[in-house]
Amino acid sequence: MSPTLAELTEAELLRRLARFAPPNQLSDDTAALAADARPLLINTDVLVDGVHFSDATTSALDVGWRAVAANLSDLAASGAVAIDGITVALVAPGCTSWDWVDGVYQGISAALDQYGGVLLGGDCSKGEQRLLSITALGRLGPLRLHRNAARPGDVLVTSGPHGLSRLGLALLQDDPSLRDIALDPSLHNKAIARHLHPTPRFDEVQQLLACKPDHLPWRAGGTDSSDGLLSAVAGLCSSSGCGALLQRDQLPVAEGWPEGPAWTDWCLSGGEDFELVLSLPEAWADIWQKCIPESQRIGRINAEAGVIRWAHNHERVEAGGFDHFSQP
Amino acid sequence: MSPTLAELTEAELLRRLARFAPPNQLSDDTAALAADARPLLINTDVLVDGVHFSDATTSALDVGWRAVAANLSDLAASGAVAIDGITVALVAPGCTSWDWVDGVYQGISAALDQYGGVLLGGDCSKGEQRLLSITALGRLGPLRLHRNAARPGDVLVTSGPHGLSRLGLALLQDDPSLRDIALDPSLHNKAIARHLHPTPRFDEVQQLLACKPDHLPWRAGGTDSSDGLLSAVAGLCSSSGCGALLQRDQLPVAEGWPEGPAWTDWCLSGGEDFELVLSLPEAWADIWQKCIPESQRIGRINAEAGVIRWAHNHERVEAGGFDHFSQP
Repeated sequence: MSPTLAELTEAELLRRLARFAPPNQLSDDTAALAADARPLLINTDVLVDGVHFSDATTSALDVGWRAVAANLSDLAASGAVAIDGITVALVAPGCTSWDWVDGVYQGISAALDQYGGVLLGGDCSKGEQRLLSITALGRLGPLRLHRNAARPGDVLVTSGPHGLSRLGLALLQDDPSLRDIALDPSLHNKAIARHLHPTPRFDEVQQLLACKPDHLPWRAGGTDSSDGLLSAVAGLCSSSGCGALLQRDQLPVAEGWPEGPAWTDWCLSGGEDFELVLSLPEAWADIWQKCIPESQRIGRINAEAGVIRWAHNHERVEAGGFDHFSQP
Repeated sequence: MSPTLAELTEAELLRRLARFAPPNQLSDDTAALAADARPLLINTDVLVDGVHFSDATTSALDVGWRAVAANLSDLAASGAVAIDGITVALVAPGCTSWDWVDGVYQGISAALDQYGGVLLGGDCSKGEQRLLSITALGRLGPLRLHRNAARPGDVLVTSGPHGLSRLGLALLQDDPSLRDIALDPSLHNKAIARHLHPTPRFDEVQQLLACKPDHLPWRAGGTDSSDGLLSAVAGLCSSSGCGALLQRDQLPVAEGWPEGPAWTDWCLSGGEDFELVLSLPEAWADIWQKCIPESQRIGRINAEAGVIRWAHNHERVEAGGFDHFSQP
């Protein structure tokens, strides 16, 4: 029978967590990283029980994996080429079982094993609600992808289909609106896997760095689609003082994705697909797309500051979006 | 009338928070730090409403200051000589007023203005309970203070008195056990100030680096007393495989500190004084103490692994300690 956190002394909890870090890593007040000639990239993300995960849909192992993957996705979308590691602040009620915590750290370790980096340190506290706050540290390659570096004339491309994570969540929640819809079984499985086990796009960033045409400067707009595809495009546009035209017939959806307004909305604003959304000169975009089979060209950046329109009818693109504080 | 967080769009919240960071600092998925020849030190601390602070005792401004000071204290106690900055994950219910958040970030800014570093980035989410998870980044000087670097024969010294923060908390809570005690007014005020406005000991670390006798190597054990003086000594001993003898008549208490077992216990395990606790060769300790008026020599490290005794009677030193998950 697993003890609860309240039943563990702080020393015993630390001893159990130390298993997930390199030897002696957690024995000082701080972690240290050796000096490195590359700039450091830093990102902090918080995942809250009932907001970003729940026992109904997500195992402890998947909570840990998703927390790390979400963080590392931000590093990838900024141009990181190596991961130093993460710190983890864990807050949980005293009645939380150690087994759950153990599972979360197993998921964290699995993601770090996959993408690089180690558990550098962290903190634990009791609290009313379970949550993880993760800070990820990595090293920048030759190109910093900025939200404010999109330019009129650029092509908008993304590394993969969107809406899958939202569909996966709906399937895990047994959403009644899906009951009468015959989904392709491979789409069903892909959606659940995408929701539980997202992939930060480091390989696709490496391809981007490797395929830049020599005549182009190191300049590209970029972000990830953690808050949804449309939100990512809007972020690029507002930070860059640009607008965008999106191709309705080139929305990045998975094979077998149904038609209809709700499905378009999930593609545009489902969120948590963690794909790269890039604003690139056309020549660079063309070469990159040849290297990334699931990539999709979705539109073009223009000079109409802050406005996103459909290319076919010039109407504004609207979608639900995602608000962190309002009630669901 | 201040809006609540639920009444602010995510974009508006970000716009308001961006005031506390350098221009455009919060406009990308990550923060970047330029390459630096010095190793990086990293620390993450979480402060939870009802566990580490409460409206009854702590203003929003002081919550922000304390959160930063607690984090920076860990950097100081590891040998940091410069602060890059912090990331802040803020979790709060949607009904939280913007004024409270604004106050917290003002306190954060005040501490960063005082000690160096900037708001690098962060994340916000709704949650049932207010909390802050802060990750601080700084640069290591010539000496990494390690918990595992105490050696038998070292002198144990601390940068200042202990128990003040615990007394300050009791005063702010109007603790009935204090009602019949005539406290010196300057002790009263000092205790409250210490609780609300702790000071990371960067100056004392600089002094330590400046005064090392030439014949000694760069080796010193060190930690901070965030979890209490005895816990700090115990951490040094257990990580270093040593023991300690403490001088009962040299406990580091403030002027006017009352006598009695409860007062000794607060000195030993009150916590949150954020002083340096160092294990140094005697010659180095002597010179350092001459530079730090409030410093106190509290005992000596010996070879009795993991055991802390009183020097006068060789009985084990016992104190309540601090457990993060058990109920108060």
